[in-house]
Amino acid sequence: MKKTLFSFTLSLALSCATALPAAARTDAPFPAPATVSAEMARSVSAPAPDLWLTKERSPEAVSALAKNYAEGAGPAALALAEEYGVKVEEGELGGVRTYTLTPKKLEDDKADKVVFYIHGGGYILGHGVAGIGEGVLMAGLEGYKVVCVDYRMAPEHPYPAAIDDAFRAYKALLETTPAEKVIVFGTSTGGAMTLILGIQAARAGVPQPAALIAGTPWADLTKTGDSYVTMDGVDNILATYDGLIRTAAELYTGGADMKDPRLSPVYAEEAALAKFPPTLLVSGTRDLFLSNTVRMHEKLLLADRHAELIVYEALSHAQYYLNPKAPETKTHYRLLGKFLDRVLDD
Amino acid sequence: MKKTLFSFTLSLALSCATALPAAARTDAPFPAPATVSAEMARSVSAPAPDLWLTKERSPEAVSALAKNYAEGAGPAALALAEEYGVKVEEGELGGVRTYTLTPKKLEDDKADKVVFYIHGGGYILGHGVAGIGEGVLMAGLEGYKVVCVDYRMAPEHPYPAAIDDAFRAYKALLETTPAEKVIVFGTSTGGAMTLILGIQAARAGVPQPAALIAGTPWADLTKTGDSYVTMDGVDNILATYDGLIRTAAELYTGGADMKDPRLSPVYAEEAALAKFPPTLLVSGTRDLFLSNTVRMHEKLLLADRHAELIVYEALSHAQYYLNPKAPETKTHYRLLGKFLDRVLDD
Repeated sequence: MKKTLFSFTLSLALSCATALPAAARTDAPFPAPATVSAEMARSVSAPAPDLWLTKERSPEAVSALAKNYAEGAGPAALALAEEYGVKVEEGELGGVRTYTLTPKKLEDDKADKVVFYIHGGGYILGHGVAGIGEGVLMAGLEGYKVVCVDYRMAPEHPYPAAIDDAFRAYKALLETTPAEKVIVFGTSTGGAMTLILGIQAARAGVPQPAALIAGTPWADLTKTGDSYVTMDGVDNILATYDGLIRTAAELYTGGADMKDPRLSPVYAEEAALAKFPPTLLVSGTRDLFLSNTVRMHEKLLLADRHAELIVYEALSHAQYYLNPKAPETKTHYRLLGKFLDRVLDD
Repeated sequence: MKKTLFSFTLSLALSCATALPAAARTDAPFPAPATVSAEMARSVSAPAPDLWLTKERSPEAVSALAKNYAEGAGPAALALAEEYGVKVEEGELGGVRTYTLTPKKLEDDKADKVVFYIHGGGYILGHGVAGIGEGVLMAGLEGYKVVCVDYRMAPEHPYPAAIDDAFRAYKALLETTPAEKVIVFGTSTGGAMTLILGIQAARAGVPQPAALIAGTPWADLTKTGDSYVTMDGVDNILATYDGLIRTAAELYTGGADMKDPRLSPVYAEEAALAKFPPTLLVSGTRDLFLSNTVRMHEKLLLADRHAELIVYEALSHAQYYLNPKAPETKTHYRLLGKFLDRVLDD
């Protein structure tokens, strides 16, 4: 059991044997503060993995890296599902491949609800079951049925393939599940795609889901925002914009305007934001995407939406779900559950 | 007019002609990101003022510094009140001196409400009208009647004089104003005292106010928490724990246990937190007290309270109100107003 969870954690730290960038702002990671658990302290004080630091820029190299990532993260996610007694079933929605995750016990008040989960990975990582880990924890810890969308990614399928797939699958889901029973959920690129789905629905007049949960969303694909600079070399997951993130942005957008709200939802027009359902945004005090998160939150507040924000003590990008052994991870899912209890009708 | 506002801003940057501490984490301030206004960029990119960097430790030196501070900030706050047409009247509540701030026009829906304002300043700064600036903006920009409590401070009056005064004044206010019409509001030390007042009320069975607004609260007087380290030398208001903040903590507590919840409310027992009214916490991405803020927020969420969090892009400690010319300051007060509209009964 320990081994399984450990490899899930490690899957994010895949080495890719490429040159590292010049020194980041700090030479050594900041120590973990006394305010995190001993288990989370191990994650918080670990050196940044090579993955997001890579300077590889060619489509071929990125594809190889994504294949390598999936070979580690896929089996780890399936082992995690087994660990939590979560059933994983392949299916499709609107022609897009999905994985439906069913918890061991589906409580009555959750039986009619579906979490539509959009994985992260910079529009380049997380193919197949390699993209379901965070959803597995939502099923395993909070007991929701989760439908994970396995959308097309760059470099093979640039913008707008990913968001087209996610929106198509969402619309297909609405044919069998009322929108007010659907929660859209994702972290990082998945957090951005969650927000973009809200924009797409608003513009197309498609019913909004009951709630959005956008964890540390990649809400601005350009290197704009305070924490891209202040947290460079402090965040020990993504580490810096100037490695794989920049490459991913370029390969995915392929020359499109990166400030288009369908790429960077922080630039969405207020008319679209005004139609958003209750939305939860999540970040951490060391998160390279802290600014992405809080800028989006402020936009939603100014559009008079029910928009909640949680910022976790000492955590880097997405670190709230990457170490399932840490008590902070269970607390995070408890808080997601409490948010949903607050905003969902029974 | 411009001069007035400028001196209000500058009052926070009072020089005190003492030795500076060793170099902080960064040698030069981080540049302002493109996500803030040109006016706020001036504040964001300014070097840290000498005030909080001072290594002076003696009670006499701190008293002199506080006197110097009040001589600058007091007239600036009165000028700001004049600028906004806010009437300032001295009075008392329960034997504690107060300043009542009345906006130019008191709208009907606000006529029965009182903002009970507790100023910041590390339990050492903000005597008399030097402590009313933030309250003046609440009256001037959001149109609330504000009662500012001029509590006793260290080094002359150490713990628990400050919180005793604030609580006594609050209880006296309840003799004329129903608790459900009272909002308790403060920043920094005032944010901590706002939270402590909630704890005092919970423990004493005194009615809670309708809402608490605790801006970047000094929720942990010990140097515990991530942002005390990660934001050291990044925050350009407080700059570091290891200057005047440490001195203030020591002079105020005078050997009392700094983890007592009446000193560090982040350690409050859940039984007290469970009685809190809707609470808004506010911070910034460069705030030395970001961890103080988010740790407190998480505690309240776990106690199933209505607890909201706003984190402003690129702002250091309390910077959301220190430059009244910046559009971000007006946005901040608009968001405070929206929060109150959400949680107050009409």
